[in-house]
Amino acid sequence: MSYNKAPSITAETINPRVKIFNYAPCGEILKHAERLEQEMEGNPGSLPFQEIIYCNLGNPQVLGQPPLTFFREVLSLCDNPTLLDKDEACALFSPSSIKRARRIINSILSKDTGGYTDSRGIKCLRQVVADGITARDGFPSKADDIFLTDGAGAAINLLMQILIRSHEDGILSPLPEYPLYSASIILHGGTMVPYNLTEDNGWGLEIFEVKRCLEEARSAGLTVRAMVVINPGNPTGQVLSITNQEEILEFCRKEGLVMLADEVYQENLYAENKKFHSFKKVARSLGYDEKDISIVSFHSVSMSYGECGRRGGYMEVTGFADDVKDQICKVASLTICPNIAGQILISLAMDPPKLGDESFELFDDEKEKIRSSFRKRAKTLEKAFSSMEGVSCNNLEGALYLFPRLHLPSAAIRAAESK
Amino acid sequence: MSYNKAPSITAETINPRVKIFNYAPCGEILKHAERLEQEMEGNPGSLPFQEIIYCNLGNPQVLGQPPLTFFREVLSLCDNPTLLDKDEACALFSPSSIKRARRIINSILSKDTGGYTDSRGIKCLRQVVADGITARDGFPSKADDIFLTDGAGAAINLLMQILIRSHEDGILSPLPEYPLYSASIILHGGTMVPYNLTEDNGWGLEIFEVKRCLEEARSAGLTVRAMVVINPGNPTGQVLSITNQEEILEFCRKEGLVMLADEVYQENLYAENKKFHSFKKVARSLGYDEKDISIVSFHSVSMSYGECGRRGGYMEVTGFADDVKDQICKVASLTICPNIAGQILISLAMDPPKLGDESFELFDDEKEKIRSSFRKRAKTLEKAFSSMEGVSCNNLEGALYLFPRLHLPSAAIRAAESK
Repeated sequence: MSYNKAPSITAETINPRVKIFNYAPCGEILKHAERLEQEMEGNPGSLPFQEIIYCNLGNPQVLGQPPLTFFREVLSLCDNPTLLDKDEACALFSPSSIKRARRIINSILSKDTGGYTDSRGIKCLRQVVADGITARDGFPSKADDIFLTDGAGAAINLLMQILIRSHEDGILSPLPEYPLYSASIILHGGTMVPYNLTEDNGWGLEIFEVKRCLEEARSAGLTVRAMVVINPGNPTGQVLSITNQEEILEFCRKEGLVMLADEVYQENLYAENKKFHSFKKVARSLGYDEKDISIVSFHSVSMSYGECGRRGGYMEVTGFADDVKDQICKVASLTICPNIAGQILISLAMDPPKLGDESFELFDDEKEKIRSSFRKRAKTLEKAFSSMEGVSCNNLEGALYLFPRLHLPSAAIRAAESK
Repeated sequence: MSYNKAPSITAETINPRVKIFNYAPCGEILKHAERLEQEMEGNPGSLPFQEIIYCNLGNPQVLGQPPLTFFREVLSLCDNPTLLDKDEACALFSPSSIKRARRIINSILSKDTGGYTDSRGIKCLRQVVADGITARDGFPSKADDIFLTDGAGAAINLLMQILIRSHEDGILSPLPEYPLYSASIILHGGTMVPYNLTEDNGWGLEIFEVKRCLEEARSAGLTVRAMVVINPGNPTGQVLSITNQEEILEFCRKEGLVMLADEVYQENLYAENKKFHSFKKVARSLGYDEKDISIVSFHSVSMSYGECGRRGGYMEVTGFADDVKDQICKVASLTICPNIAGQILISLAMDPPKLGDESFELFDDEKEKIRSSFRKRAKTLEKAFSSMEGVSCNNLEGALYLFPRLHLPSAAIRAAESK
């Protein structure tokens, strides 16, 4: 027979786009740590340390950050709604958790949390998220624009699938990078168009630099489809000024770029004089409406609340025609629906206990403890870096990251150059 | 300026692979139903019915199937592990649920369920799943081959991303189809190579037909990389005989095809004389080991237990080189990890209460009620179809589906032909 028999799958014959992307947070260093851990298990005392602490990902609960009681109580009740009918539940759950869980369960058609939901998530929970955004921004948000997702990563991958047609499609994305973006762009067949953040300007975003990168990409034949902005910054920890956000929005509008606003650190702010403003809010304040600019905002329960492993998030999709949103929905439906526990959690994050609610005091106290612990650690690290010889570092304004600079001695540079 | 300004995103300019696939379960009929529902809400009494019952997906709990108490109790405790330290918990949770939840929490490094886990899932839970497979099959399964996933859909999409390089790569997939496969193959840029199941043979799979399709595809220049088999069948409800499974495995081995075994209905069997045998078990019984054939088996908590919205599943990946598994892991790490509630549930499904355990009786009773209710409904539908004029239907052996045949009167066919 003359057929080419298909070879078995090898690392050489898998999808080449899979081979070429890197995702360092789950890459070689992690694998080495796992090997060391196995060695320690198999042969205790063989290594000069007793424990490996994984810091490859922002993963605060694994490093001791406690969860918020209200979140977990509501989740626990929703997982097992028969508890809501039992008097004994009052001994274990606060009245406001019971009330909230009952409201959630009653908003689900089957009065339970086991069934598939709409691909975008349960409608009432999307409404809660939309109301939370409206309250945050002072501009209306609609449930129909909300897609609940298995964390922000799933949403970002989904958008890349929608936007990227071939390697001739480019996505503007910041350097220093959060490697999910380059990975996702490459995996989905596109080209990352990197732009540099300016370290000397507190990791600010300079429009002339982005414009330069856009023009270079276009000269090279790329169609640039979207611009990723991460605010507060990952891994650079800056919080953009409103003026800067306005420039970016004007730029995206003028250039016809979809704005992908990674806003997952919106609750993680440390600088006294900085506030979080969503790109959609700034756009609406500028008078840009849905016809002027397409904005997708990503958020999740991972970074602000540490509920990373729950995989709960949303994206708010504005300025897209209905037939495009239908297509987004179709891709979302390939995994049928986001997980329900994650859906519930993001609804709680966007509608937390308010002043006057029974559970407000505890909730606020727990949240403030987390916040001040982050602040303290940020200051400690800032101080440590700035006291080290040959290291300088911008202040941490938001997110979970500091990005220090190493100043190599000129002799070392000369030695390297001579090789 | 002479740049091509990028157009805003429209339905015409999105990724064309997104445009061309269809996923009927979440498609036009569903949208029409949602429109009707909105109409009913906005204008009660305007339609000649009061309620819309969604049957677009196998979604048993939404149609009244109760969840298993043990599953929900363990989940509820794991979501809020502080309950485990409270005496009052004994009034609300069974001792065996408490015991199991404690074991799970203790197996997690942070003793809680909020952190990101390994991209493949928590190691101890993967071990539980592997042990469950070993017990089911009588052949060893290893934790390192188990990837916990957000349901089977996510796992199938991931495998397509690994396997498909271009539209010249084909995936053999059965007709009548479960449309996730064609959708996922198209979205990821490949070509579906359909093969027909044989209705007159109880929807059995005839190797000469698959071979014909493979050869045709190869003649057309395709490299066929994998063969999808769904057993028990979706949407055709058959359970393959061991002999048939052996032929399929021999075929895949000989032709160098990865076998993608969709085994999500393995608990849904109704025919007295039929048993579920995993493809891996049949392969090992034939003496085929990892070097002979690559098999991926998919399973989830959705169809056997109705916990669809939880998004819990696993894939067992055998016969792949370590460097290929590393690449699978890398793609999995782009969404960082599967949701923890789903991870816990699939571990419970693969290690349910056993005879002698305190909770066994209730668990078994609840499960038997679900099973017999399915059996009863299957029989009712079978009878209904076979008593209808112009309709014939194979018996339901497994899964959740009957696939009836409509016999059009010859006059109708002639009339259609004349047009």
